[in-house]
Amino acid sequence: MDKARAREAQLTKPAGSLARLEELAAWAAGWQGAHPPKAERIQALVFAGNHGIAARGVSAFPAEVTVQMVANFEAGGAAINQLCQSAGADLGVHALDLENPTADFTVEPAMSEAECAAAFELGRDRVADDADLLCLGEMGIANTTSAAALACALFGGDPADWIGRGTGVDDAGLTRKVETVTAGLAKHAAALDDPLVALCCLGGRELAAMAGAILGAREKRVPVLLDGFICCAAAAVLQAAQSGALDHCVAAHRSAEPGHSRLLAALGMTPLLDLGLRLGEGSGAALAAHIVKAAIATHVGMATFAEAGVSEKS
Amino acid sequence: MDKARAREAQLTKPAGSLARLEELAAWAAGWQGAHPPKAERIQALVFAGNHGIAARGVSAFPAEVTVQMVANFEAGGAAINQLCQSAGADLGVHALDLENPTADFTVEPAMSEAECAAAFELGRDRVADDADLLCLGEMGIANTTSAAALACALFGGDPADWIGRGTGVDDAGLTRKVETVTAGLAKHAAALDDPLVALCCLGGRELAAMAGAILGAREKRVPVLLDGFICCAAAAVLQAAQSGALDHCVAAHRSAEPGHSRLLAALGMTPLLDLGLRLGEGSGAALAAHIVKAAIATHVGMATFAEAGVSEKS
Repeated sequence: MDKARAREAQLTKPAGSLARLEELAAWAAGWQGAHPPKAERIQALVFAGNHGIAARGVSAFPAEVTVQMVANFEAGGAAINQLCQSAGADLGVHALDLENPTADFTVEPAMSEAECAAAFELGRDRVADDADLLCLGEMGIANTTSAAALACALFGGDPADWIGRGTGVDDAGLTRKVETVTAGLAKHAAALDDPLVALCCLGGRELAAMAGAILGAREKRVPVLLDGFICCAAAAVLQAAQSGALDHCVAAHRSAEPGHSRLLAALGMTPLLDLGLRLGEGSGAALAAHIVKAAIATHVGMATFAEAGVSEKS
Repeated sequence: MDKARAREAQLTKPAGSLARLEELAAWAAGWQGAHPPKAERIQALVFAGNHGIAARGVSAFPAEVTVQMVANFEAGGAAINQLCQSAGADLGVHALDLENPTADFTVEPAMSEAECAAAFELGRDRVADDADLLCLGEMGIANTTSAAALACALFGGDPADWIGRGTGVDDAGLTRKVETVTAGLAKHAAALDDPLVALCCLGGRELAAMAGAILGAREKRVPVLLDGFICCAAAAVLQAAQSGALDHCVAAHRSAEPGHSRLLAALGMTPLLDLGLRLGEGSGAALAAHIVKAAIATHVGMATFAEAGVSEKS
């Protein structure tokens, strides 16, 4: 990071005038552990899971859409496919036991510790050793409800503070989301002080896998772009378990899902983009990968004042 | 635009979930006059000019930096070169009579009508007939002072409301900027009701060329990404002359130069990016070209619900 900052000061531009781009170049160099930073291999990982609470009518779409969208990812027809192609990212899609949804968390923990740990380890293992940047995303009908329950368990507030319309539920569906989250928090109240136990009780396999991938990226020195509300809720488990656990992560964007702004504030993160997206799939992360690539290209490719023969500040 | 919106409704995502990306695809289709929209040929135009008021000590950098930076653009060493390469944009740099700075506008009009019209026509002519998107930018030591004077003439307020530190002037330089703008507005007060006359009196050749390029793009059906404060001040001349003149333009980003936020509000524009940049050169526009490209790639490449066999909203 010191080398990146020293180079920035010599490049042909007013000091600090590339602002967030300069910060991204230093961040990438720091977490990659090398200068100059690279953005040659960009990995995108999308994890998919099904949720027992989908049966409670908390989503605008039926639960079979999870497996249908995984097929769409595999066929190249989804938004994330186009966005990864546009950003030059390699997309890996991992469907996690979709035929066995997690348990209804208003009745019992969504996952056993063993189920949660298996999903976490799968995510951790999927991070490529040679990735320069990891974009994370998810697919799972009903998972804004799971993410809202988890965020509320970690950061407090009223359930309604964390709940939005997700893929577009109507007012009755919104009421069911609030009731479901309220019931889940009441059911597991005694167990929620431990963030990882909260993940077992209220999360889902795709959330556990994203948390695992964030840890795997840390171990493999890969900087991470977090996607929207669900991805950040999964990330928040690590932050709640250990302060600083997300220092290698940047929030790619601010989702239109209202809980995301609250979550970004709780995590102390300023997102790179704010374009009203609310799709998930890692779409915001893949879009923001362009910004990180451009930041690194600028940092690496620009001439210094001395090289270009440009006069410095008078 | 109707065709773009009809297609969006069929793509495999919750309705409206790509938000600003969907708007960009419809905007590009509308101004290109064709569906599907394209982002194959992206043209970036950077115009450079020198300013008589530079001699008044309104910039942190000496006036010779304009010609030095043009050489840096031509040698490929500037930020805009890396950003254009990253976005796949063709960069054209046009230096406008750099050896003859405009007149000091505190004494006389910066440009005669003929000089201003020549720069305007040059910009208008440089837009490529086959461009799918135009990114506009500038270089000119002292041109935040010129832009502030122009914005104040067009939209009112105190000169200080429109003035910031530009490339990084100190407090004394900031005072000189306010004094220079105040003197210029007083000198030409009787002539400033006509936006094009205001451009002659207070602008610069690069500002006139950008205004001309915006008109040329309109004539050639090329959507435009506006860069920061100076580019938007040039654009504002057209808007002040005729309402709707900028409907084919999108603000690429919000610059850290404080007058830019005020200018965006006056133009009714919501920028695509807000990353604290304050470099000029078209850097924000080239960076935002990635977003437009991704929007079009998503719009064009995604599967429909029917194609992918994904269930629609229940």
